[in-house]
Amino acid sequence: MPVVTTNIQRAAAGDVERLSGFGVATVHEAQGRRGLLAPVMRPIYRPCHIAGTAVTCEVAPGDNWMIHVAVEQCRAGDILVVAPTSPCSDGYFGDLLATSLQSRGVRGLIIDAGVRDVATLTEMKFPVWSKAIFAQGTVKETLGNVNAPIICAGAAVHPGDVIVADDDGVCVVRKAEAQGVAEACRKREEKEAATRARLAAGELGLDIYNMREKLRERGLIYRDGSKD
Amino acid sequence: MPVVTTNIQRAAAGDVERLSGFGVATVHEAQGRRGLLAPVMRPIYRPCHIAGTAVTCEVAPGDNWMIHVAVEQCRAGDILVVAPTSPCSDGYFGDLLATSLQSRGVRGLIIDAGVRDVATLTEMKFPVWSKAIFAQGTVKETLGNVNAPIICAGAAVHPGDVIVADDDGVCVVRKAEAQGVAEACRKREEKEAATRARLAAGELGLDIYNMREKLRERGLIYRDGSKD
Amino acid sequence: MPVVTTNIQRAAAGDVERLSGFGVATVHEAQGRRGLLAPVMRPIYRPCHIAGTAVTCEVAPGDNWMIHVAVEQCRAGDILVVAPTSPCSDGYFGDLLATSLQSRGVRGLIIDAGVRDVATLTEMKFPVWSKAIFAQGTVKETLGNVNAPIICAGAAVHPGDVIVADDDGVCVVRKAEAQGVAEACRKREEKEAATRARLAAGELGLDIYNMREKLRERGLIYRDGSKD
Amino acid sequence: MPVVTTNIQRAAAGDVERLSGFGVATVHEAQGRRGLLAPVMRPIYRPCHIAGTAVTCEVAPGDNWMIHVAVEQCRAGDILVVAPTSPCSDGYFGDLLATSLQSRGVRGLIIDAGVRDVATLTEMKFPVWSKAIFAQGTVKETLGNVNAPIICAGAAVHPGDVIVADDDGVCVVRKAEAQGVAEACRKREEKEAATRARLAAGELGLDIYNMREKLRERGLIYRDGSKD
Amino acid sequence: MPVVTTNIQRAAAGDVERLSGFGVATVHEAQGRRGLLAPVMRPIYRPCHIAGTAVTCEVAPGDNWMIHVAVEQCRAGDILVVAPTSPCSDGYFGDLLATSLQSRGVRGLIIDAGVRDVATLTEMKFPVWSKAIFAQGTVKETLGNVNAPIICAGAAVHPGDVIVADDDGVCVVRKAEAQGVAEACRKREEKEAATRARLAAGELGLDIYNMREKLRERGLIYRDGSKD
Amino acid sequence: MPVVTTNIQRAAAGDVERLSGFGVATVHEAQGRRGLLAPVMRPIYRPCHIAGTAVTCEVAPGDNWMIHVAVEQCRAGDILVVAPTSPCSDGYFGDLLATSLQSRGVRGLIIDAGVRDVATLTEMKFPVWSKAIFAQGTVKETLGNVNAPIICAGAAVHPGDVIVADDDGVCVVRKAEAQGVAEACRKREEKEAATRARLAAGELGLDIYNMREKLRERGLIYRDGSKD
Repeated sequence: MPVVTTNIQRAAAGDVERLSGFGVATVHEAQGRRGLLAPVMRPIYRPCHIAGTAVTCEVAPGDNWMIHVAVEQCRAGDILVVAPTSPCSDGYFGDLLATSLQSRGVRGLIIDAGVRDVATLTEMKFPVWSKAIFAQGTVKETLGNVNAPIICAGAAVHPGDVIVADDDGVCVVRKAEAQGVAEACRKREEKEAATRARLAAGELGLDIYNMREKLRERGLIYRDGSKD
Repeated sequence: MPVVTTNIQRAAAGDVERLSGFGVATVHEAQGRRGLLAPVMRPIYRPCHIAGTAVTCEVAPGDNWMIHVAVEQCRAGDILVVAPTSPCSDGYFGDLLATSLQSRGVRGLIIDAGVRDVATLTEMKFPVWSKAIFAQGTVKETLGNVNAPIICAGAAVHPGDVIVADDDGVCVVRKAEAQGVAEACRKREEKEAATRARLAAGELGLDIYNMREKLRERGLIYRDGSKD
Repeated sequence: MPVVTTNIQRAAAGDVERLSGFGVATVHEAQGRRGLLAPVMRPIYRPCHIAGTAVTCEVAPGDNWMIHVAVEQCRAGDILVVAPTSPCSDGYFGDLLATSLQSRGVRGLIIDAGVRDVATLTEMKFPVWSKAIFAQGTVKETLGNVNAPIICAGAAVHPGDVIVADDDGVCVVRKAEAQGVAEACRKREEKEAATRARLAAGELGLDIYNMREKLRERGLIYRDGSKD
Repeated sequence: MPVVTTNIQRAAAGDVERLSGFGVATVHEAQGRRGLLAPVMRPIYRPCHIAGTAVTCEVAPGDNWMIHVAVEQCRAGDILVVAPTSPCSDGYFGDLLATSLQSRGVRGLIIDAGVRDVATLTEMKFPVWSKAIFAQGTVKETLGNVNAPIICAGAAVHPGDVIVADDDGVCVVRKAEAQGVAEACRKREEKEAATRARLAAGELGLDIYNMREKLRERGLIYRDGSKD
Repeated sequence: MPVVTTNIQRAAAGDVERLSGFGVATVHEAQGRRGLLAPVMRPIYRPCHIAGTAVTCEVAPGDNWMIHVAVEQCRAGDILVVAPTSPCSDGYFGDLLATSLQSRGVRGLIIDAGVRDVATLTEMKFPVWSKAIFAQGTVKETLGNVNAPIICAGAAVHPGDVIVADDDGVCVVRKAEAQGVAEACRKREEKEAATRARLAAGELGLDIYNMREKLRERGLIYRDGSKD
Repeated sequence: MPVVTTNIQRAAAGDVERLSGFGVATVHEAQGRRGLLAPVMRPIYRPCHIAGTAVTCEVAPGDNWMIHVAVEQCRAGDILVVAPTSPCSDGYFGDLLATSLQSRGVRGLIIDAGVRDVATLTEMKFPVWSKAIFAQGTVKETLGNVNAPIICAGAAVHPGDVIVADDDGVCVVRKAEAQGVAEACRKREEKEAATRARLAAGELGLDIYNMREKLRERGLIYRDGSKD
């Protein structure tokens, strides 16, 4: 039987805040190249960059009933994450549902399906990452779980996990790992800032990363092409 | 033998005008969830929103000759709708054809194929919905019908039908149904405006739409996750 | 054994400059409809329009090591062209590599794979044409050729060839043909400017291109639809 | 409101029989290259070749209820043609429904969605052309029209039309045109048989079709490559 | 750090045996429509039908090193399940690895990537479900986890889970649920056998499933089309 | 102007013969993982395995005229390789053209487009590798080059090159490298035969290839899962 889990445990607000300062590529790297959703998930407008805690929602193909149920489980700082039980590109979500979520302080929507009213959503500044933009309407006939673990665009998402989304896509950080990943992000960025300055000054990555020796060992050959 | 039908019957200008006030999602819903083109049809720039009467044009793969023929059949308020006789992504249409259409008062192009010169089209504010952006040129060798019924991106389009297109995609309204659909759109929007205000004020869809009882009957269970 | 060719012969700077004044559709037409990359190659922001000389780089799937090697072979006015040895959408390239290329005067990147940090790349105004936006990271383990002939998105690219890229996509012009193609572009544009003015004034392509006779010969029929 | 149309007019049995003697490519050519469904529609086993009269059925995404309704409208010699109201690959149809259709003398299924139990369907010799094989189950909640005109895989199908399907795909022949198309098929095959014999004997198409003159006029050049 | 987990807990052999008697569609339905892999996963030959316990293996794109590591963790009755850490269609697996697995009594391979040597694998009767057939070779440079939970073609697979695969695709059953699902399958098949007999005898699903009343309530209309 | 090159230089018959003894995966590996066509190229029946010398043919989208021209340039032992100048899936080739090619001793067709009459082609045992099966007919209006270098499904093919095609796909071997690649294939197979025997006897690849040390160095960890 479908179950709605209420009062889920969420990642700590401080960790979410810290993670919100980093891009998806950084977060993904910092946690060992895990947690990315498939690249088919694109933002409906750019630039946008959000982080929040996941409320998860299963929907049947062509049926958005459970999104209405999930809205009630969302609170300020959440991001709604929706996955259909079989592949579907219908427009599950539009400006009315966005109005409802925005009034509750929800930061955005991640949906492995379609979305509509994107012009209005853009004006409202309610960000959505989806696999399609499609006006096709849905029915309200079939139950599904809310706040159960789901697989969304190829990534496992548990309720309360941290979602980070920007122009590069979407990444999920497990609730229990949020603090550690935020710290790893900070260190990575610190290191990258130094590297960036050197690169901007004209130094080469080959030298900064000490790659020349390893390239030679592997057998890379240089030849002069000026006479070709 | 290929035929060009001249002086087609078009939907009434007043109905087109009324329909132009509504988005694709609304029109599609108001006519019973029919008439949407496939989601692969995307606008070359956003936002854009047009409505007009269809002039239809069949083209052979890699051959845009009949578009030149169709231009002459277009008049102010029309939208040109082009479908290839077999799937093709070539760039059938560019800034010269757009200049010609724009000089005749044509409002845009819907093409189940490719388009090119999109930077110029964007500057000209000539909107196009297409399945591809591709510079690949075409030849002018093969005849086809103009103003015959066609299937464009999975939807049947008859000459004179109303086309509504916006950031969500493209919808076709049958000529004879334009008045009724416009009225149904108006009612739908009216109702949605009231709902939107309540949602913005924090009321839940679950309550506005009286869903709680039906959810309970179907067996939806709520459990507390605070101890998980 | 993988080879890096240094000091490649590049197309003449003057020819590149002249070609930079034309769009991809024009260049493609002017050289006989050759040299287009597949339409899956899209710019990360629009509008953008560049031309430059190709430095080519082969990479293994999920491995961007050779891009670091290729950077050193790039100089002002170049465009880096990257192709994986088997299809891959990983994010091979981000803001650090872009900083490095930009500091060398490189004009952009063409990559038949994925790219990340697109928000930063957009702010930096470093243009990229890619087949995907994906944060997925890569390793640095496998060698490949730099400045060998490659096939990128279905088009053959030789080191030193001219790349022209704009909102319509990407086109390659062979080094030895650059001068001739630039001249052919100029003539084409000249002719199109005249045609554009006539079309804007309301003349029809059917008349400007003298198509009516040929259409009649092929058997095109006109019928009046006003009584349908 | 959804409607089931009973006692539809079907194409004449004799015409269907005659058309069943021809392949899809022949039928498609004989009726002026119209009526093909998209190439994504593939048979679940090969070889297979059927012809019959269409009973049409609209289904909601992930919902096969109306197929059960459509079965009752099928009789011996029919082919069931199913199209979802929005794109869906779920497994709408399996061995139970096939048993039911086979017991009524139905010749096969054309479905622009998924099918399952394909091993059993193959053993039963019940042919299906579908866009996917997918075990994903469906619900029974939503009404749709039976024996209304539909668009299936990009082709318009009216109830009672003739469907011809073989290893090359699926083609629809309008009821009113069945006789004429059958006759055109016969003539085409007759002509092809003669050509085939000449080709098998080593004559060239260039000569049989008198192409050499036209090729020369268009400017085709022959050059000797033996010294390359 | 990548970890290989040895001596994993496997589902009970008896449950696997019982599940092997049912098709993928049945298993999927019996466990509440969960556990299906995406329909892109197709068998390299048909018919084939296997069940076994999962040994899971993560691989880097274009790198099959960890498959060699995973082989050692496989024993008789297992099925190797491989997922790349980012999407890849390379040919990770061929006849040598199949020989090695077959010598250990492994029943087949599920790989969300490419496979090669399919003619030999077919002769060997070593079944594979993959998303591609591609000869492209891989390297052996990058570590990954063996017998960690993975997501394969959109479904979560834990080591020791039961995999059932047939011509319809692939389904995973959680280790702890294997016994219950096998029992649910048995009941479902029993019921279906009775239904099948009635359908074969000409009874309609509309009557067997008592659908007529519900259809009427929902508003389905029947009209006679004999005069159309 | 389009050119037909006659009397092309072909790879030596003995080298083709030797290469015909090896599968596509072996040939591809033996020449350094180069020369594979994209995996979308699939045989119309299986098993099949051919090798021959390439006659290349460019065609316009939806236009098979040049195939008729190319037939005359084919002789016994050749394989016809066809690429459209822009992407197209139409059915360029059917049983009549196959009859003509077969009467000349041509061994098969490689076409980066569609094919039809596949049931007859299968009966005739005329193998085809294509990206689609589609009955859609083509016209005969546009010229193209025959025996010019082309890019087919992402691989460069020169006239006279060796094509090897089997159930895994298609590989091209440059004319000048045919002898060396054949020898490299022989050595590879020899080595693999020995390895296969050891694997079949139960030895592990980990030991045969001495991988354990390298895995340990890279940091692979083994842990016992029997208590999980």
